Amino acid sequence: MANLKFGVIGCGRIGKLHINNLLNNIDGAEVVAAADPMLDKSGAREWLAERGITNVSTNYMDVVNNPDVDVVMVCSSTDTHCEVSMEAVKAGKNVFCEKPIDYDIEKIKKLLALVEEKGVKFQVGFNRRFDHNHKAVADAVKEGKIGDPHYINVTSRDPEPPPASYVAVSGGIFYDMMIHDFDMVRYLSGSEAVEISAVGSCLVNPNLQEESGIPDVDTAVVTMKMANGAIATINNSRQAVYGYDQRVEVFGSKGMAADQNDLNSTATITTVDGAVSEKPKWFFLERYNDAFIEQIKYFIDSIVNDKPTVVGAFDGLRPVLMAAAATESCRNGGAWVKVAE
Amino acid sequence: MANLKFGVIGCGRIGKLHINNLLNNIDGAEVVAAADPMLDKSGAREWLAERGITNVSTNYMDVVNNPDVDVVMVCSSTDTHCEVSMEAVKAGKNVFCEKPIDYDIEKIKKLLALVEEKGVKFQVGFNRRFDHNHKAVADAVKEGKIGDPHYINVTSRDPEPPPASYVAVSGGIFYDMMIHDFDMVRYLSGSEAVEISAVGSCLVNPNLQEESGIPDVDTAVVTMKMANGAIATINNSRQAVYGYDQRVEVFGSKGMAADQNDLNSTATITTVDGAVSEKPKWFFLERYNDAFIEQIKYFIDSIVNDKPTVVGAFDGLRPVLMAAAATESCRNGGAWVKVAE
Amino acid sequence: MANLKFGVIGCGRIGKLHINNLLNNIDGAEVVAAADPMLDKSGAREWLAERGITNVSTNYMDVVNNPDVDVVMVCSSTDTHCEVSMEAVKAGKNVFCEKPIDYDIEKIKKLLALVEEKGVKFQVGFNRRFDHNHKAVADAVKEGKIGDPHYINVTSRDPEPPPASYVAVSGGIFYDMMIHDFDMVRYLSGSEAVEISAVGSCLVNPNLQEESGIPDVDTAVVTMKMANGAIATINNSRQAVYGYDQRVEVFGSKGMAADQNDLNSTATITTVDGAVSEKPKWFFLERYNDAFIEQIKYFIDSIVNDKPTVVGAFDGLRPVLMAAAATESCRNGGAWVKVAE
Amino acid sequence: MANLKFGVIGCGRIGKLHINNLLNNIDGAEVVAAADPMLDKSGAREWLAERGITNVSTNYMDVVNNPDVDVVMVCSSTDTHCEVSMEAVKAGKNVFCEKPIDYDIEKIKKLLALVEEKGVKFQVGFNRRFDHNHKAVADAVKEGKIGDPHYINVTSRDPEPPPASYVAVSGGIFYDMMIHDFDMVRYLSGSEAVEISAVGSCLVNPNLQEESGIPDVDTAVVTMKMANGAIATINNSRQAVYGYDQRVEVFGSKGMAADQNDLNSTATITTVDGAVSEKPKWFFLERYNDAFIEQIKYFIDSIVNDKPTVVGAFDGLRPVLMAAAATESCRNGGAWVKVAE
Repeated sequence: MANLKFGVIGCGRIGKLHINNLLNNIDGAEVVAAADPMLDKSGAREWLAERGITNVSTNYMDVVNNPDVDVVMVCSSTDTHCEVSMEAVKAGKNVFCEKPIDYDIEKIKKLLALVEEKGVKFQVGFNRRFDHNHKAVADAVKEGKIGDPHYINVTSRDPEPPPASYVAVSGGIFYDMMIHDFDMVRYLSGSEAVEISAVGSCLVNPNLQEESGIPDVDTAVVTMKMANGAIATINNSRQAVYGYDQRVEVFGSKGMAADQNDLNSTATITTVDGAVSEKPKWFFLERYNDAFIEQIKYFIDSIVNDKPTVVGAFDGLRPVLMAAAATESCRNGGAWVKVAE
Repeated sequence: MANLKFGVIGCGRIGKLHINNLLNNIDGAEVVAAADPMLDKSGAREWLAERGITNVSTNYMDVVNNPDVDVVMVCSSTDTHCEVSMEAVKAGKNVFCEKPIDYDIEKIKKLLALVEEKGVKFQVGFNRRFDHNHKAVADAVKEGKIGDPHYINVTSRDPEPPPASYVAVSGGIFYDMMIHDFDMVRYLSGSEAVEISAVGSCLVNPNLQEESGIPDVDTAVVTMKMANGAIATINNSRQAVYGYDQRVEVFGSKGMAADQNDLNSTATITTVDGAVSEKPKWFFLERYNDAFIEQIKYFIDSIVNDKPTVVGAFDGLRPVLMAAAATESCRNGGAWVKVAE
Repeated sequence: MANLKFGVIGCGRIGKLHINNLLNNIDGAEVVAAADPMLDKSGAREWLAERGITNVSTNYMDVVNNPDVDVVMVCSSTDTHCEVSMEAVKAGKNVFCEKPIDYDIEKIKKLLALVEEKGVKFQVGFNRRFDHNHKAVADAVKEGKIGDPHYINVTSRDPEPPPASYVAVSGGIFYDMMIHDFDMVRYLSGSEAVEISAVGSCLVNPNLQEESGIPDVDTAVVTMKMANGAIATINNSRQAVYGYDQRVEVFGSKGMAADQNDLNSTATITTVDGAVSEKPKWFFLERYNDAFIEQIKYFIDSIVNDKPTVVGAFDGLRPVLMAAAATESCRNGGAWVKVAE
Repeated sequence: MANLKFGVIGCGRIGKLHINNLLNNIDGAEVVAAADPMLDKSGAREWLAERGITNVSTNYMDVVNNPDVDVVMVCSSTDTHCEVSMEAVKAGKNVFCEKPIDYDIEKIKKLLALVEEKGVKFQVGFNRRFDHNHKAVADAVKEGKIGDPHYINVTSRDPEPPPASYVAVSGGIFYDMMIHDFDMVRYLSGSEAVEISAVGSCLVNPNLQEESGIPDVDTAVVTMKMANGAIATINNSRQAVYGYDQRVEVFGSKGMAADQNDLNSTATITTVDGAVSEKPKWFFLERYNDAFIEQIKYFIDSIVNDKPTVVGAFDGLRPVLMAAAATESCRNGGAWVKVAE
């Protein structure tokens, strides 16, 4: 079986992470082309050359139009995800697109239609579905081990807040951070959110709104009525001082499935002061390292064996709709907002 | 130091539990009188006699007016809690009143005023504050170990639902079950709920409303905006098939405090099928056994050493106000309802 | 069903504990008589009177010969356990005897023969068999869940060492402390130790031997070859600064059963310094409180329903034989010593 | 900083593992040469070529004498480790040698002397010292968090036994399997075993001795008197049906440090049947994957920054001396055997 040939568009932090994984940790893949507008200013050209990737360009269309390329990985800046993906799909390429596809729902829908029309494989980078812990919980739910889901709770806290300047262009906590958790609720419940209420405060940084210039919050709780009757909640904080807090719980008619954080080690020191265990892994690079790899393996499998992708374009759309509803709700004091179709 | 003399009004399940604890597990207390309208029909007279309690009556005023009685324990049916407490306070007795004091807010307020006027000690039976796990979490919060509270989550699930006939007269899940959790949120956060949104479904028993004749739910999630800016959630289910699920988590600026269920044992059996640990203790009698005792010890201490009671009449009022708000919200699709003063 | 009538001989700490449990926590039992040589000097007479026990004597034979007494509880000083038990058995009483029966193997064997001859019920106070954790492990082994036992490990550490003056008369760590663990190994493995090797050091108190005047150790590890081919180890320390460390593990052909310590609470505080959980319960009164009660309930059941006692006179003999072998081995540098029959 | 150039001798499973790690997961290293006597028969030549390693030979002296090579990795068959290492050290190369160096103590001592004379860096592949869990325990001990070590316990069980044909040439359980645990005891205690007693049985495979033709065991418990007064035990089984069981515990004057197994996930499913958690990772490739990488990073650091290696030639010698003592003891019914210097 010949290797799948990847072309990577965008060689920033996340692009490099994917390239390293494709080269080192994933069988059946090779990287044959790359593009980045800052190729020379950022040092990406050299970084790529060290890894034997010399077919490089500042114009992403060179990757899109490269006949050798089987798969385009869209790792460019968020505002270009959709446009780049459209071009790649038009060119008949399979596309792996980093999340979010876009914040403009109409644009995502057009992409979705085009993917369907072209019949290519399209996967969105909701890597957490591939985390060993969350996946084990989701699998248990799917296998019916806990019966019908009644209540889903997702705890998702970052170890440190981004700078206000980042927040200013992030779209806000619901688009930037909770988007992963919206996907998680869909993944765990097997159902869609119908209506959403979101409340939030600036408890980590009371000056966040002034500093960022947007009416954002850093502590948020969202409640959702799911189509299957279940109720879901998500709690987000931009700062859990003890590390990346990523836990899920699904409670149902036959029991409960829940996971815990991965810790730096399982060691415990017990003294007169109590039993001290380790903190959670620091952040997403540490916690979801394997999940970044797993998602690509699944994507390759869907291409090679012509299966549906595990996280398709529709799965890229729904969390954006949820983020839109949550943003509106939060700005209206938690009023219930229907999630658009 | 002479023993405090208790008179117990109401000798059903909870009255008997308190009597046994006063006799067996609590120093400095004795039971000198008891009353129950069903004294003879229920077999309570004999039960009391076996324990040496012979000053008994079917009229609770005999206990209230007994000059030997230092403390009246109000364990009568819920609808009489307030009236009996009023009489006992009027008579200058210290009163321990089972929760809830009443569902009528004005009546509770009158009692509160009377307690203040009379200067007696009054404690409400929110026993969970005295649970070793929850108390350790609350103490950590009070000691500032987790900084300012940002998010409080209370998980509270019963092992099996009550019969619909009980639900019919229970006042509904928010008054009957979540009332304890409302108290827990106040206890853990050190703050008051300002506004409440409640959503719920009949997922355990889809026919609950028909069978009970009241618009109740068996699965509920409540979100609260707290006066100190924190956000709190409570999730209730009438049926966790694996046992009594009682866990709390407080997340704050400096960390997180959380507890786990007490289990039947710490034993784990690890085989090819995984590692099997035990289920939580079955229900409140098993889980909160020691808490029932602890709360009385605290009450005795507040009387003997003239300290404020740990859970006073005001603490009996607030959860009822919260239950009222939650009930209204739930019947209005989760609309935000201000908690009355 | 009439209550079983207990006569308690020896009203020191352990005698009082049993009396309180019989009065408060055990159904179907009453205490009708008590004896203690120090009745007046120790204040025991008053203590007993407060509990309504007025048939008291300084001569234990008054209890033994009391025709009302169904069960004699032997809680006198260790050196009199066997003699008192002999008299009680001779008098046809059922006997609950605190551990150890004696250190003199011939005396225990005579008692054992007498118990058999008289056909009374006899139970030794190896209360740990009734601990919820250890019992769950033992039950799993008995039910075949882990297959054939291959390896048994018992960790048993006290929170603080006894005074050297106590050690001087204790018989040494193997008789005084590890005796419980020898019983635990028999209980968990369902087999007998054939040969024993014991090593030890004075690591807690390097001056222990000088101060106590006996060649004792405070840190000991014992290895045993069991009759069924399994290997067992016990590790003891007189001082685990973090509390009473009581854990067992049984590994077998189909898996492993193990328990953990009971903790003061399940609360965990997670901060930048890690996750801090609570220490184990402090000592045997806290940890084995329920086990003290459970063992008496089992004993009552064996009398009332004429079943074999769970821990009979033979079970009192074997750990003493093991302690003898371990003591000899330890004094000979760990040489293997056969356990006498 | 130029990359360190590695030459790998032996391209079987473990050689390939190291090569993949050097290529993919370790910065500052490259693989410039390789040798394997079965280069063509085994397919290793192609495997290496796919990774760009074309300077290959069937004669390991070609690697040893390659002037480009900074570091020789000895991954050849166990019986050649010492001879190959000798040649590489003679040639002035830094050497990473898989464990064990040899079973012949005199040969190891000669190598040790030569390493000292030549002043090269030499590291033995006791990778478990670099496991995140065990290292955290060892670090806590070194930092004095548990005071003086009193008792060390190492649990080490494989998920499935090797074939009897492998056992026949393995040197037996103490050389083949427990050798890692002997190293762990040294690592955790910071002290040397003075005297050893080993007992064992064939409980996994009662026919092991007949099938393998050597007097080996598959279940073994070793007790050690350490130079610092502590006592250490190791328990080994060739078959823990639930997976690779790798746990350590160090108990000392100020507390205890212990770790748990890494699990396949942290998910727990709680139902009426109890709470089911996952099994430990299956075997050493899963559990110690990161440790294989970490040890090489440490080795590179010791070369680049001219520091002592963390696990030197002397550390390769001591566990072999301990295995020799344990083997002798086990064949003599557990008699105490002094560990040779």
